[in-house]
Amino acid sequence: MTEPELHTLPARRGRAVRLKKGESIRIINTHGQQVVDTWAFNADDLREFMSMEHLRASLERIFPHAGDMLVTNRRRPILAFVEDSSPGIHDTLMAACDSYRYGLLGCTTYHDNCTDNLHGGMGLIGLTPPGCPSPLNLWMNIPVVEGGRTQWGEPVSKPGDYVVLRAEIDSVVAMSACPQDILPINGAACSPTEAHYQVLR
Amino acid sequence: MTEPELHTLPARRGRAVRLKKGESIRIINTHGQQVVDTWAFNADDLREFMSMEHLRASLERIFPHAGDMLVTNRRRPILAFVEDSSPGIHDTLMAACDSYRYGLLGCTTYHDNCTDNLHGGMGLIGLTPPGCPSPLNLWMNIPVVEGGRTQWGEPVSKPGDYVVLRAEIDSVVAMSACPQDILPINGAACSPTEAHYQVLR
Repeated sequence: MTEPELHTLPARRGRAVRLKKGESIRIINTHGQQVVDTWAFNADDLREFMSMEHLRASLERIFPHAGDMLVTNRRRPILAFVEDSSPGIHDTLMAACDSYRYGLLGCTTYHDNCTDNLHGGMGLIGLTPPGCPSPLNLWMNIPVVEGGRTQWGEPVSKPGDYVVLRAEIDSVVAMSACPQDILPINGAACSPTEAHYQVLR
Repeated sequence: MTEPELHTLPARRGRAVRLKKGESIRIINTHGQQVVDTWAFNADDLREFMSMEHLRASLERIFPHAGDMLVTNRRRPILAFVEDSSPGIHDTLMAACDSYRYGLLGCTTYHDNCTDNLHGGMGLIGLTPPGCPSPLNLWMNIPVVEGGRTQWGEPVSKPGDYVVLRAEIDSVVAMSACPQDILPINGAACSPTEAHYQVLR
């Protein structure tokens, strides 16, 4: 069996891929400190999508682990979380970054952001998402501490860590290499990097 | 000053009200154990709405308290959380219940649900919401415990407890008296009740 083609998720950019039911995607944290905001849509009806608020109710846990089934806003499986070589720290709590966020962080000119990257990545394959659902933020480290307070942690993953997600229905998976370079979400260097992905057919 | 008119939020039903900027709504947990799913929309553009995933990023906390500003999916204030006579346990993590949820809980016939109540309540004032944003679940008690696990707790509020929310922009506030009667979300009796509200002009 030949190794599946390795695709680049460029730094600060978005990409989207179609997966048939049963196909999987391996998302690779090539340099080890990069958060990848991840969405999944029903390929036949983009109004059905992976939903963090429905996922938390389904899992009865705020963070998913390998072995979990990820569900949609219609509470049915869309992706199986099959493998995770990293310590399993991912986030379901925080919205994708957007122009408004960077404005509040002091930016006075356009800043790349995950919300626009969702639209850009899906646009490259001819699709328009119905808004920006709350993403599964792979490798984003948001500890919930005393009093329900959250912290903006650094990823605890290492170079080459990956997750494998298997489509339970015909799906579109979108990813954004988070361009956050003001908070240390993508590591203390605040230097967002590329990531990679492979489709496993 | 005369006491503002007391409106009933009927058990298992939804209602919506328009608030001008500066007006407030007092939502009253009349019988003490009732969860009220609450949404807010920009009256001039319903695509802008109070968003829990943006709120958590803004507050850096998973639960809002009196004194907090509640923000939209464009990260600007929509409601000020002015007063809370209850112990301050509310939920931002869980999706509104829906037909899919009750199907998974074993219901084989239609069950009232907060998602349909959002549509029903807004329909009564001639509006159609753009989907069902993740609600602010007033008085819903979802402890987050070790390992990020969540529990379906009972409300810790008492009869007559209330919150006051002040509109920071012209808004539509929608509420659903949660009809959950399978899990003890509305108290151990699993018996959803009415609630009440007043508009403070």
